[in-house]
Amino acid sequence: MVGGGQGAFIGAVHRIAARMDDRYRLVAGAFSAEAGRARASGRELGVAEERTYTDFAEMAAAESKRKDGIDVVSVVTPNRFHHRVAKAFLEAGVRAICEKPMTTTLEEALDLVELVGRTRLAFCVCYNYTGYPLVRQAREMVAAGEIGQVRVVQVEYAQDWLTTRLEETGQKQAAWRTNPAEAGAGGCIGDIGTHAFNLAEFVTGLITQQVCAELTTFVPGRRVDDNVQVLLRFRGGARGMLWASQVAPGNENALRLRIFGERGSLGWEQEEPNRLLFSRYGRPTETITRGGPGLGKAATSATRIPSGHPEGYLEAFANIYRDFADLLTAWPDGPSGSTPSLLPGVTDGARAVQFMIAAIQSSRAGATWLDLTP
Amino acid sequence: MVGGGQGAFIGAVHRIAARMDDRYRLVAGAFSAEAGRARASGRELGVAEERTYTDFAEMAAAESKRKDGIDVVSVVTPNRFHHRVAKAFLEAGVRAICEKPMTTTLEEALDLVELVGRTRLAFCVCYNYTGYPLVRQAREMVAAGEIGQVRVVQVEYAQDWLTTRLEETGQKQAAWRTNPAEAGAGGCIGDIGTHAFNLAEFVTGLITQQVCAELTTFVPGRRVDDNVQVLLRFRGGARGMLWASQVAPGNENALRLRIFGERGSLGWEQEEPNRLLFSRYGRPTETITRGGPGLGKAATSATRIPSGHPEGYLEAFANIYRDFADLLTAWPDGPSGSTPSLLPGVTDGARAVQFMIAAIQSSRAGATWLDLTP
Amino acid sequence: MVGGGQGAFIGAVHRIAARMDDRYRLVAGAFSAEAGRARASGRELGVAEERTYTDFAEMAAAESKRKDGIDVVSVVTPNRFHHRVAKAFLEAGVRAICEKPMTTTLEEALDLVELVGRTRLAFCVCYNYTGYPLVRQAREMVAAGEIGQVRVVQVEYAQDWLTTRLEETGQKQAAWRTNPAEAGAGGCIGDIGTHAFNLAEFVTGLITQQVCAELTTFVPGRRVDDNVQVLLRFRGGARGMLWASQVAPGNENALRLRIFGERGSLGWEQEEPNRLLFSRYGRPTETITRGGPGLGKAATSATRIPSGHPEGYLEAFANIYRDFADLLTAWPDGPSGSTPSLLPGVTDGARAVQFMIAAIQSSRAGATWLDLTP
Amino acid sequence: MVGGGQGAFIGAVHRIAARMDDRYRLVAGAFSAEAGRARASGRELGVAEERTYTDFAEMAAAESKRKDGIDVVSVVTPNRFHHRVAKAFLEAGVRAICEKPMTTTLEEALDLVELVGRTRLAFCVCYNYTGYPLVRQAREMVAAGEIGQVRVVQVEYAQDWLTTRLEETGQKQAAWRTNPAEAGAGGCIGDIGTHAFNLAEFVTGLITQQVCAELTTFVPGRRVDDNVQVLLRFRGGARGMLWASQVAPGNENALRLRIFGERGSLGWEQEEPNRLLFSRYGRPTETITRGGPGLGKAATSATRIPSGHPEGYLEAFANIYRDFADLLTAWPDGPSGSTPSLLPGVTDGARAVQFMIAAIQSSRAGATWLDLTP
Repeated sequence: MVGGGQGAFIGAVHRIAARMDDRYRLVAGAFSAEAGRARASGRELGVAEERTYTDFAEMAAAESKRKDGIDVVSVVTPNRFHHRVAKAFLEAGVRAICEKPMTTTLEEALDLVELVGRTRLAFCVCYNYTGYPLVRQAREMVAAGEIGQVRVVQVEYAQDWLTTRLEETGQKQAAWRTNPAEAGAGGCIGDIGTHAFNLAEFVTGLITQQVCAELTTFVPGRRVDDNVQVLLRFRGGARGMLWASQVAPGNENALRLRIFGERGSLGWEQEEPNRLLFSRYGRPTETITRGGPGLGKAATSATRIPSGHPEGYLEAFANIYRDFADLLTAWPDGPSGSTPSLLPGVTDGARAVQFMIAAIQSSRAGATWLDLTP
Repeated sequence: MVGGGQGAFIGAVHRIAARMDDRYRLVAGAFSAEAGRARASGRELGVAEERTYTDFAEMAAAESKRKDGIDVVSVVTPNRFHHRVAKAFLEAGVRAICEKPMTTTLEEALDLVELVGRTRLAFCVCYNYTGYPLVRQAREMVAAGEIGQVRVVQVEYAQDWLTTRLEETGQKQAAWRTNPAEAGAGGCIGDIGTHAFNLAEFVTGLITQQVCAELTTFVPGRRVDDNVQVLLRFRGGARGMLWASQVAPGNENALRLRIFGERGSLGWEQEEPNRLLFSRYGRPTETITRGGPGLGKAATSATRIPSGHPEGYLEAFANIYRDFADLLTAWPDGPSGSTPSLLPGVTDGARAVQFMIAAIQSSRAGATWLDLTP
Repeated sequence: MVGGGQGAFIGAVHRIAARMDDRYRLVAGAFSAEAGRARASGRELGVAEERTYTDFAEMAAAESKRKDGIDVVSVVTPNRFHHRVAKAFLEAGVRAICEKPMTTTLEEALDLVELVGRTRLAFCVCYNYTGYPLVRQAREMVAAGEIGQVRVVQVEYAQDWLTTRLEETGQKQAAWRTNPAEAGAGGCIGDIGTHAFNLAEFVTGLITQQVCAELTTFVPGRRVDDNVQVLLRFRGGARGMLWASQVAPGNENALRLRIFGERGSLGWEQEEPNRLLFSRYGRPTETITRGGPGLGKAATSATRIPSGHPEGYLEAFANIYRDFADLLTAWPDGPSGSTPSLLPGVTDGARAVQFMIAAIQSSRAGATWLDLTP
Repeated sequence: MVGGGQGAFIGAVHRIAARMDDRYRLVAGAFSAEAGRARASGRELGVAEERTYTDFAEMAAAESKRKDGIDVVSVVTPNRFHHRVAKAFLEAGVRAICEKPMTTTLEEALDLVELVGRTRLAFCVCYNYTGYPLVRQAREMVAAGEIGQVRVVQVEYAQDWLTTRLEETGQKQAAWRTNPAEAGAGGCIGDIGTHAFNLAEFVTGLITQQVCAELTTFVPGRRVDDNVQVLLRFRGGARGMLWASQVAPGNENALRLRIFGERGSLGWEQEEPNRLLFSRYGRPTETITRGGPGLGKAATSATRIPSGHPEGYLEAFANIYRDFADLLTAWPDGPSGSTPSLLPGVTDGARAVQFMIAAIQSSRAGATWLDLTP
């Protein structure tokens, strides 16, 4: 693991997710660039001192030389490091699970696409919401034509934790996520807008062609956007809207997707992830439940316990880790980049960066339409 | 009443609404331009034969001359007649309740603004959703600063009844509403988009300054838009999104408004109109109920029965009629145009037409930004 | 109308309900036994002075002699008068719509059963919740075997308005409803418990055979029960629970019915009356909506406006009045007691009284089982 | 671990729960009495062959002698073995986490109470729903008087998986749970009724004094009850109802608790465990969220991730394991029975057995009132 030292949020989530199915062991880490904090974190996490690094490059080099070196690295640093860390490990032959957004520039993103294509090493970007069983069910249903050709996509991701200027209070998460030097040019657009974008494309299978984006900063003094409104045009004629906000009081983590097709619709919300609304035009709406009747293969294999016992965020996250472990098991000795899988790969990561960059540019140009070339 | 003959939908709603509080009697009507249908409708509704007209102009003339002539006319025809009917009665000195959109062109709209301004006769446009008690409560709360300055407005109005080409099946409502000759250039934008627009401005008190609209026709062969997606810029810096659709399976009449301010938010849905969600940043969300604790004056005076006994669409509609009757009671003998009231007046009607026209033009120009000059 | 003078609640509801479909005119009334209040009420309601009575017996006599005498009387007095008022009018040949509970003793109830049976005059007890379209839909579905043989019935009716000793504050509704001299021996059991009981039998078609009831008075000083918990045994083996409470904070008028059969279940809540949950075992739950797809005849004919425009309490109440008007139209000149109809009749009224009395007796005996002999 | 071999459900849940916080290692097990299955399970779970037992008594003996012997045993066998397994380990000085119901007879339950009292070893019964953060929040709020003295408790636990005679189809879970020889005399009452009972007492802090229970078997041929309806009398005057059913179509795992006090109420549902409804009489209802504003110490310390990222069943279960680990950490070398903790202990386990036995006896006597002597 690189990043995820004491005080970090997402690192702990990754560790629980990895532990859930007993498929991983945490044996090495560069938890912090600060030596004291790195050591303390390693000790707390039971990592041997000799494998507790303060420099990720050193770790990549050292681990790739060990006989018992790591099989996979989790990249959980602030955004601006994602590219260089992932690159270092891939070049050292180590497969990687990388946090989103994959990079902060398009050039870096394309660089990783090229690198993964060349090394054919398994690589996954943590669009973790794709791990929810009913998200996968929705994708499977759209692909099977259950709602007919998709016409309209409404996706939103609303939070309220940045309603005030939290970054000035010393809150670590708020501080780096609103600092362009750490998070990149995008604030809300990168932090959660790309999740919404990825979810929409993942479930519908549609390709976004053009965007018209209005990014706003509502909290005085903030240096990045905290509200995002985007019109989307998809290849084939479907239309969409995307709203992401971190200044929407009353919303905790309200990622919500609705898809409308010629014959029906699907609706899913992250805060009640065990329900999927399915409407067939001219019939009463049905509530499909995780583990309940009528589920397809994708959802069934992504769930651990019977219906009615709610699964949540950690279980969905753990599905990413479990699927990645399955990839490694299938290809224990080497490249596996082309193995089919539901995991968001380097291309999905790059598309999301492309979306983020296009949205920022569109907004700067006064919210005009921009192409999202493939 | 002009329009609302046999087979019509909204005419019957107006009649129930007018009857609810026993403040009106239906004594004259031009229910249809077709003589047979007009007479049959009149008979069914208990209107004297001599006051059952086939021509609205004749009715305006005749009724304004009678000593017991009508006090108010309800204009419930297809859109393209609104302007000329309203005009005929206003010029004859008769006050009017007019269906929305008030007119199909901006010129007609401004003409009515001028006419009402000049005659100072009471005039109301049926943005009936403003009659819901909790919509008025929300407006009052925003005005009182309960959520602070408004930053983000998300409004949507989704239906599914035009998912297929219903207009080809002989369904009367679908036929005229998708016929530009009857409904005007706007389909979904005029029919329900203006409701969403009006609701957003009514509750927030904000003035929309610019729009960027994408109007789409998804059903092959349809001659008007059936899906509407708009970015909104409000005076003062607030930002909004508006989605209206008549091809969204699983939605019946899903008008939904969410408003986010510096200190809190409000959320309301027309299909569950007896609940208003109120979040104060940093506190648990509260569910305010119609008739329940914590209501202000506007909501309290707009409700008829105790909390927990749901009120619905007809009661909200009846509030429009009741308020209009109150206006007449206050100004029995003449002009009352400037009386303060919560009723949507001719200016609100004109603003919605302005929005509709701007959205159509924006969309035709490829979804570019257009001003909505006041 | 007898009762329903100024300050009353349910009288106004009856008047709106009667007006909704333009099938009734209010022409006479004994709105209060107090002369001043009676006159003032009559004047306010537009009833001629000569037909404004202070004595219901006088009214029955006078009206039955007039050529233009009333066709129907609405009995909306406090409970203890129901029997004598209904009797007076029935004996004078006037049909009646009577508030619930029909009487306060079993003897009185049986007396009315005999009287209606003998006169064969149309008579309806205001179990108004049976007027909701989706309640009728549920009844039709159970009867059609959609959920198979019923096994379990869970019904509840919770309110919170008597959580404190409101009757001491001068609140008129609280005062008479908690006064045994006005309301009868039952408090909560009579006021809302009988609604829940009636709803359960109406929808399931089951006959309650035995009850075991625990009636409690939680508010110190109160003279009637304010919380009711009952186990139910139905003929044929089904089992049920009934909970009614007026001291349940957070509940406004939460009447809720759930029915479970061999093959499926149905669920309905009065506060969201436009939705009916339908589960077929082994299939996702469906949400049936008022006016939406899949409705049967009973629901369709009990609704006035399209789906998605919520109907509420007043519309359901108006269905009772409309159905009663239909009865009179079918049998304009006389007896109609045996006409088939969905209206709760004198037998249903008597069964509810029987239930109420049995529950009171069971509770007094320490919550033991008692028969509810037919 | 004793029990939980291949094909079992709850064993896997315990293992994930134990793993979640990295506080346990699975090092020994008697996963099945059948040698082949025991060995295969052990191998799959990575347990050394020498510590894979086929006999729990042998395991207790062997492990207690090892220097590196187990610190805790998880008892996850069918109900009838709970007592003898727990006893064997406790007598060998090994602390235990035991599935519910703790035993199948009252004698066995009291025996364990005595044994735990004597040995003062940490012992926990898996009433896992007490591990949900908002359940603990509710308990804390009741104890703090937030809703005043409790008056009414409505608790229910509804499932539908036994709507048909599943036990005849070879489904392993259905087979043992409906077999009195394996599960004890109680079916639904023991399997889920005791969960509901425990939850009600845990949150309210009330002591159940008397029960009147109706246990029914609806599915023909079934040998145990599948539907349970109980009236409850609590010490101090509160009243309650408990419904548990395994034949309620449309319910997956619908454990739901509502508590009404003099000043307010609380409501929680297991299928949406991240929300707690809190009503203060005369104020709008508030929705308290896991991780959101207004939480007390108990809830805060029982949650792993920020609000809006739903936690579920496994996280709640893991809280039981984590708290037990905390107990062991506090008392590493021995007895800890009297350490204060939120964990359901041997007394809670015995109370639930007492309730189960009393309910069965009450029902057999025709649903009469029975004491639940402490």
